[in-house]
Amino acid sequence: MTDKKLILGMGLIDGYGGLHGAWRAPHVDPGTYADVDATVRHARAAERGKFAFLFTPDFPAVRADVEHSTISNLMDPLIQLAAVARETTNIGFVATGSTTFQEPFNTARQFKALDVMSHGRAGWNAVTTSDPAVAANYGRPVADRDERYQRAHEAIQIVQALWGSWQQDAWIKDQQANRFIDPSKLRPVNLQGEYLASRGPLGIPPSEQGQPVVFTAGGPSPHLLSIAGRYASGFIAEVWTIEQACAQRELVRNAARDAGRDPDEIKYIPGIMTTVAPTVREGLDRRLKYAGEVIEARLPHLGAILGIQIHPDRYDEPLTPEQLVSAHASPRDPRSSNALAVARQGWSPRDILAHGVIDFHPTVVGPGELHADHLQEWFEAGAADGFWVTPDIYEDGVDAFVDEVVPILQKRGLYPTEYPGTTLRANLGVPHQYGPDPRLTGAE
Amino acid sequence: MTDKKLILGMGLIDGYGGLHGAWRAPHVDPGTYADVDATVRHARAAERGKFAFLFTPDFPAVRADVEHSTISNLMDPLIQLAAVARETTNIGFVATGSTTFQEPFNTARQFKALDVMSHGRAGWNAVTTSDPAVAANYGRPVADRDERYQRAHEAIQIVQALWGSWQQDAWIKDQQANRFIDPSKLRPVNLQGEYLASRGPLGIPPSEQGQPVVFTAGGPSPHLLSIAGRYASGFIAEVWTIEQACAQRELVRNAARDAGRDPDEIKYIPGIMTTVAPTVREGLDRRLKYAGEVIEARLPHLGAILGIQIHPDRYDEPLTPEQLVSAHASPRDPRSSNALAVARQGWSPRDILAHGVIDFHPTVVGPGELHADHLQEWFEAGAADGFWVTPDIYEDGVDAFVDEVVPILQKRGLYPTEYPGTTLRANLGVPHQYGPDPRLTGAE
Repeated sequence: MTDKKLILGMGLIDGYGGLHGAWRAPHVDPGTYADVDATVRHARAAERGKFAFLFTPDFPAVRADVEHSTISNLMDPLIQLAAVARETTNIGFVATGSTTFQEPFNTARQFKALDVMSHGRAGWNAVTTSDPAVAANYGRPVADRDERYQRAHEAIQIVQALWGSWQQDAWIKDQQANRFIDPSKLRPVNLQGEYLASRGPLGIPPSEQGQPVVFTAGGPSPHLLSIAGRYASGFIAEVWTIEQACAQRELVRNAARDAGRDPDEIKYIPGIMTTVAPTVREGLDRRLKYAGEVIEARLPHLGAILGIQIHPDRYDEPLTPEQLVSAHASPRDPRSSNALAVARQGWSPRDILAHGVIDFHPTVVGPGELHADHLQEWFEAGAADGFWVTPDIYEDGVDAFVDEVVPILQKRGLYPTEYPGTTLRANLGVPHQYGPDPRLTGAE
Repeated sequence: MTDKKLILGMGLIDGYGGLHGAWRAPHVDPGTYADVDATVRHARAAERGKFAFLFTPDFPAVRADVEHSTISNLMDPLIQLAAVARETTNIGFVATGSTTFQEPFNTARQFKALDVMSHGRAGWNAVTTSDPAVAANYGRPVADRDERYQRAHEAIQIVQALWGSWQQDAWIKDQQANRFIDPSKLRPVNLQGEYLASRGPLGIPPSEQGQPVVFTAGGPSPHLLSIAGRYASGFIAEVWTIEQACAQRELVRNAARDAGRDPDEIKYIPGIMTTVAPTVREGLDRRLKYAGEVIEARLPHLGAILGIQIHPDRYDEPLTPEQLVSAHASPRDPRSSNALAVARQGWSPRDILAHGVIDFHPTVVGPGELHADHLQEWFEAGAADGFWVTPDIYEDGVDAFVDEVVPILQKRGLYPTEYPGTTLRANLGVPHQYGPDPRLTGAE
């Protein structure tokens, strides 16, 4: 491991936090979704903890249940991150933008403007979109996978070419000589793909990191790996076990190798959800308090995950020895092995679920040491280069993580005590890039 | 006139100012184009002068001459205005966004997010785009005018419907009752036009002004008047004379009447460029200092505008009595009558051009009184409800306008001494609107 440090990013979702019902906590203003002051506050808390970036997932449509749940993303990632950029100095911004429904010229322009404005802290999480609700918002049918990914290749190539179209030394700005730009260094890109095209150039100069860092996200299908391997410096993952993460990370690294890159140029970043509390019991109680209904509704499902029958009368009793003997992790559900491990610690079904065992990501509940142990174990097993952390409730959960987990990681030598630099590239440890990667030859 | 006040907006272009060569002034950092701190500083200066809004023209392509001239717009209007919104409290933002090349769902989302974030200060200048260089950046052909305007109607209708799709009382956010939104009040819009469609809803609540204010801009063609009359609360104009402005304003007001609206609901806002200086001579010298080459290059054109021959040896002498007798304003160039009026004041050809007589907008050069007189004359003649002002050099020109012109307008009772309110609607004096205008029935 030597002196390699783990990277932390923070998932910025709806303004409330990763815990179901976070918006209902009495110390949370239920109007936070529309309150950018709160987003700024949470970003500054993460910056205090030397987080390398904020990550905004995005789903440009309203999900089904908004009566009892929140809107699961920011009002608009780039608009809100532009505001946050004004009030932070080191933390980066990895904003999700669809290659399916965004115009490459607009993507190139807005992300590079944010990058210049933030002095080199922007990243673009380039993803394809197949959800019919999103497609309907853009008045289009859902494209098939081949088309979506061909379009994604074209979009990323066009965006990176536009980023490089203002050459790094194009801006003369010599007042005496009356020369603003060297026009020979601001050139059209003239890219024409099967689905997308752009002439350019883009009239935006380089930032302190050159251009925004490209990420991608999702399950490692061959289609996505071909995107990740060629273009991405970061890979946002959803995995539940170390084994799964190690295997996936290796696929991602191999994809980079296949594209002629050093695999260390792409950082594999799985998600984690956190509840930092003095004891596990207090952490579980915090989660039950706000997510109680959701956990209640999931109880009938727990037996299925463990392959046993659980009677509703026994939801608040530890599993019996007989149940524990016959319980087994389903090979088809990667969350079930963790559910089984928690069950074996002697928790009741309700408490097992309160551990977040069937939540979106691995969840850690309890003191800072438990969190640090989890991150260290994954990191040292080669399951992650870093993590995107979604605290249970932003209002106090970011500070709790920064105060209780970060110092332990620092003490263990796993995490930087100061920002390595002022740009996202520096803080991720990924190489400089301007324009397309010269090692790639043309479109797929 | 009674107590009606004139409205001021400030044109935010490249960061330097409206004067050719502003970027070369020694007191200007030539890197200002990429420096949002400067944009914030200029915005705050305008806010000190109670400007109702900042207006960002936009041209998403690089114009031909960038060797000696600047990029003529912001890096990205919305991204930069989002930053400015964090550091201002009352000034509004009217950002140009194309109905031709922007997805209505994205327009609706980003503008409403900015509106909510700025507590009700956003406006959308909805324009069509026919420039081949812009079309090429989006990989598309230039559409014909009928198609562009049909698309514009559809885009504005979809955007306004999406803005209204989160009904004003939809957000319950009752923590005790565990009800976040009333789903019956967050409804799809299901709009399907000939070119554009969107299902919605848009997951963004109302702002303090409900939704962004719609503007439009351009010459008053029947196509544009049909947009302005139906949807716009502000009309950004380019005119050179009072007569032209009065006629155009009446066309715009009639278009609103034809759409069943009160003509006072649409504010007609022509442009003006300003050089505030202790004397006219000092103002002209300031302009000659930075725009000297451009003025030099235009000198051969001045004779044509005035219908006389001007020998290059006489560029620095006043026109002769014989020349002044035979000079006449061309009925085909609205700028020529002003050029003639300036010539008759006894200025040399070079000084006539330094008055900005063939610039983008009427230009005033000299003491604050001259500026106030111009604005008052136009305002009282019914040629304008307000003006969008582009100072010659932002770095000191905004402060000069605020310190030397605004107090005179206030003393004359023409201009508010305090912001009428905190929202763009309040500061423009336009009525509340949420969702589509109920007086309009369907698409054209």
